[in-house]
Amino acid sequence: MLEASRRWRSAGRSIGLVPTMGALHAGHLSLVDAARRENEIVVVSIFVNPIQFGPNEDFERYPRDPERDAVLLGEAGVDAIYEPPIAAMYPPGASTRVRVGGVAEPLEGKARPGHFEGVATVVTKLFAAVQPDRAYFGQKDAQQVAVVKRLVRDLDLGVGVRVGETVREPDGVALSSRNVYLDPAERRAAAGISAGLLQAASAYAAGERRLDVLRELIRARLAAEPLVQLEYAELVDPDTFSAPGTLAVIAARVGKTRLIDNLDLSKPAPG
Amino acid sequence: MLEASRRWRSAGRSIGLVPTMGALHAGHLSLVDAARRENEIVVVSIFVNPIQFGPNEDFERYPRDPERDAVLLGEAGVDAIYEPPIAAMYPPGASTRVRVGGVAEPLEGKARPGHFEGVATVVTKLFAAVQPDRAYFGQKDAQQVAVVKRLVRDLDLGVGVRVGETVREPDGVALSSRNVYLDPAERRAAAGISAGLLQAASAYAAGERRLDVLRELIRARLAAEPLVQLEYAELVDPDTFSAPGTLAVIAARVGKTRLIDNLDLSKPAPG
Repeated sequence: MLEASRRWRSAGRSIGLVPTMGALHAGHLSLVDAARRENEIVVVSIFVNPIQFGPNEDFERYPRDPERDAVLLGEAGVDAIYEPPIAAMYPPGASTRVRVGGVAEPLEGKARPGHFEGVATVVTKLFAAVQPDRAYFGQKDAQQVAVVKRLVRDLDLGVGVRVGETVREPDGVALSSRNVYLDPAERRAAAGISAGLLQAASAYAAGERRLDVLRELIRARLAAEPLVQLEYAELVDPDTFSAPGTLAVIAARVGKTRLIDNLDLSKPAPG
Repeated sequence: MLEASRRWRSAGRSIGLVPTMGALHAGHLSLVDAARRENEIVVVSIFVNPIQFGPNEDFERYPRDPERDAVLLGEAGVDAIYEPPIAAMYPPGASTRVRVGGVAEPLEGKARPGHFEGVATVVTKLFAAVQPDRAYFGQKDAQQVAVVKRLVRDLDLGVGVRVGETVREPDGVALSSRNVYLDPAERRAAAGISAGLLQAASAYAAGERRLDVLRELIRARLAAEPLVQLEYAELVDPDTFSAPGTLAVIAARVGKTRLIDNLDLSKPAPG
């Protein structure tokens, strides 16, 4: 990969990278489209990164479909798929980790110890191998976006971090590779998450500025879904992920499936 | 710096980096010569990296002489000096650290908590900014060499790590910017460190293979110097820094000055 990247760069060609864990959906493909518009070369990495999963998380059963992914990316006209084997990424003796403080600590950082260290480490490796001018991440993983931006600034990586809007199903559910885990009843209940966010956004648009009131609106909406166990619903600053702020972030379990979503209440509501 | 590096790379020119903390001596200049022979562009970084010093270490008084350094590097024909201000390297909010496990833990890692995390972080940043094909480090800091090699492999940095032999004074003392701290009596006593290493190397050359005997030779030689307080003398593997091995490593205080040195007993003794 590095050889190819250096050849492209020495030929003066710009490179866009879309890092993914595969099991691609329309959210990923919208990032590929954005990369296509801004770069001469588009690379998509597919790597289900074991070190960003906790011991009791879903690494083993995370959906994988490399053949379908390859077809979709072929149709999207990407120049290269970077799909390193785990043994090449973490060979015996590998012992280096990249840790982001501050923004990586609350919320997802607290709920998933080691998660963002795994993300920061693999992103640093992918950037080193692909040498992108720009990299594309989905707003659905809002805290990951903030962590990667911090990482790029702190390590002088010189990569432009581009953020694609969350792509949603018609009922508002944010696209996620993990949605395949949901049974039909859970899938219906999951719509309560985005519905709660939209209720808060409507209240904000109508002038409500009390953060505790806005947060309560979200919590009340989710309390109406017996299949949904709220883990957190907070209003934070989108860069630091500390309160107060206008970014509403949610993590919840729907059955056994953990889902996250977010919406910046200060921006016009989508749809 | 990154803009200049990308311009060089897109023109197909190879880049060699010599990372230093300034206060240059003949050891640094031998690395610059090596870089000159192997690369079209030579960059020397000068940065006294605060985060690799402990709270009770010598960051404040570490010798600095940027004007003399610039003259020496001009004479050596380097293409660029990269001398970032501290506030640019660690601006408010910076919170990312690179941590190497394993090889960074014993000996210097134990004696100087946080030291190698500071080294790994700044080296990652310097490599990102300078984009070198090769980087040059001195064997005097043997564990640092092993940590940087591990870092480069683990993060896929694609930089060739080149190691220059330790340059010594006529009496054997390894060149170090910290030697200026020594008063004349301490300077004489410091020669006991390399003398101990050479005694062990002679014994090894004569067939002695018992590591405890070789280690005792070093310790006895240093016990003969009242101004020298030995911190450790061990025989380790040069890649993992765990025992057993043929790399003799020493840390000692000479008066208030902490010095390190090393010699691979399995290689023909210098001189």
